[in-house]
Amino acid sequence: MPHKVIRMERTRDHSSARRPVMVAIAGDSAAGKTTLTKGIAAALGASRVTTICVDDYHRYDRQERKGLPFTALHPRCNYVEIMEQHLQLLATGQPILKPVYDHDTGQLTRPELVEPREFVIVEGLLPLYSKLTRACFDIAVYLDPPERIRREWKVSRDVRKRGYTVDQVLAELERREPESAQFIRPQRAHADIVVRFAPAEGHDDTSNSPLSVELMLRPTVRHTGLRGLLAEIGQRTVQLRLIRDEDGIPVDALHVHGYAPREESRMVQKAIWSRLGLGDGDPVATLGDVGNGRRSESLAITQLVVLDHLLRAT
Amino acid sequence: MPHKVIRMERTRDHSSARRPVMVAIAGDSAAGKTTLTKGIAAALGASRVTTICVDDYHRYDRQERKGLPFTALHPRCNYVEIMEQHLQLLATGQPILKPVYDHDTGQLTRPELVEPREFVIVEGLLPLYSKLTRACFDIAVYLDPPERIRREWKVSRDVRKRGYTVDQVLAELERREPESAQFIRPQRAHADIVVRFAPAEGHDDTSNSPLSVELMLRPTVRHTGLRGLLAEIGQRTVQLRLIRDEDGIPVDALHVHGYAPREESRMVQKAIWSRLGLGDGDPVATLGDVGNGRRSESLAITQLVVLDHLLRAT
Repeated sequence: MPHKVIRMERTRDHSSARRPVMVAIAGDSAAGKTTLTKGIAAALGASRVTTICVDDYHRYDRQERKGLPFTALHPRCNYVEIMEQHLQLLATGQPILKPVYDHDTGQLTRPELVEPREFVIVEGLLPLYSKLTRACFDIAVYLDPPERIRREWKVSRDVRKRGYTVDQVLAELERREPESAQFIRPQRAHADIVVRFAPAEGHDDTSNSPLSVELMLRPTVRHTGLRGLLAEIGQRTVQLRLIRDEDGIPVDALHVHGYAPREESRMVQKAIWSRLGLGDGDPVATLGDVGNGRRSESLAITQLVVLDHLLRAT
Repeated sequence: MPHKVIRMERTRDHSSARRPVMVAIAGDSAAGKTTLTKGIAAALGASRVTTICVDDYHRYDRQERKGLPFTALHPRCNYVEIMEQHLQLLATGQPILKPVYDHDTGQLTRPELVEPREFVIVEGLLPLYSKLTRACFDIAVYLDPPERIRREWKVSRDVRKRGYTVDQVLAELERREPESAQFIRPQRAHADIVVRFAPAEGHDDTSNSPLSVELMLRPTVRHTGLRGLLAEIGQRTVQLRLIRDEDGIPVDALHVHGYAPREESRMVQKAIWSRLGLGDGDPVATLGDVGNGRRSESLAITQLVVLDHLLRAT
């Protein structure tokens, strides 16, 4: 019945659908996805951004998962085909009725209407999992903290916010490790920007000292303008080097020093911000919030670099 | 970003999607949609049929609706745009994650995966509401019992199955009447087959006497083969007349007599069944079930006429 496709095609109102810029923020559990996303969304402004989390595409609730031989990280534990479909719909400017997974209760609840605004930020465990999901994005970011740090973050968050004991979280991390290796970490290869927070060299106490960050800027998107700017200013804050990534591919590695003088770091932030065309907003007030009233200059610079690419994709 | 559409298009696997035959069973609350649908689905066999109810696309739960100036019949009370989208997806052979409205509790619950089989039956209040939903169907049926009978059916069902009092149901019917007139009944004009059950002439006691049925077979789909068959046999059971429908358009009106001798009626049923290519099944065992262990010969013939059109659409 190809006539039916034509009938539908003729009936659809194409004029109303504006295609948004789509960005993926992928990474393992507690890798910092929500923290990174929050500042980016705040900088763009609520009226221009739609944020979704693809962990809502869980196929089973927490109770049902207890009887299954795989964890929430496994594609079989998620409606991957529906996730692909919904990302395509958003990427072509159409609304979706998105499933909702309640992290507090572990239950699947009533779905919610999501309409794509100018920018759509898609965070979660598996946004870069398939060829089809990847085709939906303009920019893909992968968060890649060292495992030791991610585990600290996960224990801290799940104990504080989700009511688990430390031992429960550690056991869950063990249980998830094979699926992290099989399904989550391979997404790194498909990112345009890989973000690696780590303690500044010679500083190990991660919970209190400022983190440095290494941004791998892959040749899959253009970084030219930004590269020039960063070479010009703030060399005590950021350093750009040509290296080979762990898979042998040439990348620009942008190192942001956690211990750079705050004033210099903020000068760099203001310089990037002024390129973005976001108006007179204050990057210091908007970016870098790591929760609990604390701030990270290197997070702020990371958010600015992602914003720079995002806004250039329009 | 038209390049993104091309990327998605190239990545999609078109080979796996078979387009199903889509049939709409539309009509007001308690018009007999589920009763008609059940026999049709049973005749085709569970492995070939997907049935959905578009009343699941309610935007608000029962509690929320209490504060609203419209009823569940109003398009504003439903995710019409999502219903359109999901019908298009099913019509092109793709799965959907369908919202679920629980009629018992009046709550919206977790959505469910629906994969289109060879035939998709879509029943509900508004499946023929928009030009785009209508473009998705191969056959559209509208159930149009006289209001007096529909009210009896609704009172009887909602009291027995949904725990309302008679007065509550009557009040709800009053409240819904303007929206029935504005949104439900206009769908009749877009049906290929209009089904009107009514007491046999001279028999008024609807709760016990067999109902007759009038089937308006609109020229929007071909009815030729069936017409010949019906003219040939069973003229005491069915009668075909050329009339003008209430909107002035010429139609074949197929009258099925509620008081026809059962043996003759079943002969007609077997004759139509044997045209359908559904194998050696027994139409009497499969069709005509009106619940409570009772059977209607005219319902069985109605189901066979719909099946005949459905199977010819493949």
